[in-house]
Amino acid sequence: MPKQYRIGIMGATGAVGSIMLRILEERDFPVAELRPLASVRSAGKLLKFRGEEVKIRELTEDSFKGLDIVLASAGASISKKYVPHAVEAGATVIDNTSAFRMEPGVPLVIPEVNAEDIFKHKGIIANPNCSTIIMLVPLKPLHDVARIQRIVVSTYQAVSGTGSQAITELEDQVKQFVSGEPIKHEVYPYQIAFNVLPHIDTFQDNGYTREEMKMLNETRKMLHDDSIQVSATAIRVPVFTSHSESLQIETEKKLTAQQARELLESAPGVKVVDDPANLKYPMPLDTSGQDLVFAGRIREDISHAHGLALWVAGDQLRKGAATNAVQIAEILIRGK
Amino acid sequence: MPKQYRIGIMGATGAVGSIMLRILEERDFPVAELRPLASVRSAGKLLKFRGEEVKIRELTEDSFKGLDIVLASAGASISKKYVPHAVEAGATVIDNTSAFRMEPGVPLVIPEVNAEDIFKHKGIIANPNCSTIIMLVPLKPLHDVARIQRIVVSTYQAVSGTGSQAITELEDQVKQFVSGEPIKHEVYPYQIAFNVLPHIDTFQDNGYTREEMKMLNETRKMLHDDSIQVSATAIRVPVFTSHSESLQIETEKKLTAQQARELLESAPGVKVVDDPANLKYPMPLDTSGQDLVFAGRIREDISHAHGLALWVAGDQLRKGAATNAVQIAEILIRGK
Repeated sequence: MPKQYRIGIMGATGAVGSIMLRILEERDFPVAELRPLASVRSAGKLLKFRGEEVKIRELTEDSFKGLDIVLASAGASISKKYVPHAVEAGATVIDNTSAFRMEPGVPLVIPEVNAEDIFKHKGIIANPNCSTIIMLVPLKPLHDVARIQRIVVSTYQAVSGTGSQAITELEDQVKQFVSGEPIKHEVYPYQIAFNVLPHIDTFQDNGYTREEMKMLNETRKMLHDDSIQVSATAIRVPVFTSHSESLQIETEKKLTAQQARELLESAPGVKVVDDPANLKYPMPLDTSGQDLVFAGRIREDISHAHGLALWVAGDQLRKGAATNAVQIAEILIRGK
Repeated sequence: MPKQYRIGIMGATGAVGSIMLRILEERDFPVAELRPLASVRSAGKLLKFRGEEVKIRELTEDSFKGLDIVLASAGASISKKYVPHAVEAGATVIDNTSAFRMEPGVPLVIPEVNAEDIFKHKGIIANPNCSTIIMLVPLKPLHDVARIQRIVVSTYQAVSGTGSQAITELEDQVKQFVSGEPIKHEVYPYQIAFNVLPHIDTFQDNGYTREEMKMLNETRKMLHDDSIQVSATAIRVPVFTSHSESLQIETEKKLTAQQARELLESAPGVKVVDDPANLKYPMPLDTSGQDLVFAGRIREDISHAHGLALWVAGDQLRKGAATNAVQIAEILIRGK
């Protein structure tokens, strides 16, 4: 690959896409050309990138000529339609949507978990679901040593995972609350301010949601282990940014809390914040705007001989989406 | 016992105490005299009960003369100090604090779970922790049929569980957010608005909090089963009222989701709200201000052959505290 890259961003104006631009700047990615692509509604508008204004182009089948890498984050249906054209035009696509994640031949990658899979790609590399990323970054080092057999996870997911319009909805609802007006909702089926919704993505026949099933299926694919069991409960909470997760794992080999803490302290992408006596534990307010997944409340599970409980939080727009995609691009251009 | 009762309320001005008054009114409890007791700060103020004004008295060791029943909800240290005096004065105390819950000889009771234990009392009957009540009301009917061996629970607990001042703190913080002021905190160690705190009550040596350990110890005591395993993660969320809980249970006998749903549909104190296709599931906004625990998202656990997952929510000031205490009083006066 060349030393400077022509990068397309599908969904450049969205909650994740706009952060992708910031991450490319922050990490000083070698960008020869930045080509933001969005719907006709945003086409012609200007975006700032490295101090210069870049015009947003309308996303069409012909948008990809000359691009080396496309970062896609405009929704699964948009990806399904346009990503094949990007690949045909010669670009490598890092797709943040669910469109191709489970397709055989499409690597699904968290660099801290399975970076080696990147080079098996045939044009598309999939970025996992945000909740799966926040969960697996801290679990992988434990799995490597003790082999995780089962994960029970309950999530506390931020509204920005839904998109920019959900951030506005939560802001509007607290304004309506403060001014004593009726609280309106449009993005979510119910009020999210001062409420929690046990419903993320659509419901499946087995009673789990698609979001919950992603946490099983994507985990199996990335760990290359179809025997690992995952039961997730995905819950939306009135938090703007950063997903938190209550994790209970069962391992083949017993792990003490201290062993787990030590493993996580030297793990890439993880920050151990686990000093409850001094009120130090992961909180979504602290993890937002940075790239590490915080892990804390690490304790041996009193209900299971080989169990371990922990509490993690991470910025799902950054490490859970944009940063993970840019990290994949970095490895891709560095080569094997 | 007489047919009209003289009732003392310790902590009558608090978040739970004030609801105890409302519940006594709603359920038409046969009250001959209502004696609200509170700190010297509130003494002399007036409370409304059944349309009449009742003067708050200062809580002292001599406050209990002539009382039949005392409902105590002024904190564990206050209960430890004053409840023995109430018992000595001849009253039966229903104590909503943690002061006596684990003492041998003090029944700990949820009427839907172990009403029969009420009559073993020697002056004190303890009301369980709110999170334990919300959890066990829907689990008891499943336990009776399939024998629960292990519970993994993550909670989503409302700020009113902390008390009135925490409600004010959350209100103030969203006002500060809307007006662009710095967000202040005093009740909680960190901002609770737009955040979640993995910290309720104090931390123990095993890494669990006291709140989390209560969910184990109280469950064992009420089910009279020291072999049942419970691992809890107790989390505070920015919700005003009603605790929600993500529950995963493992049973000796396999339960299908449909069997569990049918058992819960005929269970006392439970309302099944489980029609995800029509977006019907339990939410704290819907459970507040009433006494049933809502159960939904009932599904067979895909990670465990004898596992079942469900999502429950209930008003922790009412069924999780005040209503449960008044229900105990009702059974007490009805007699065996």
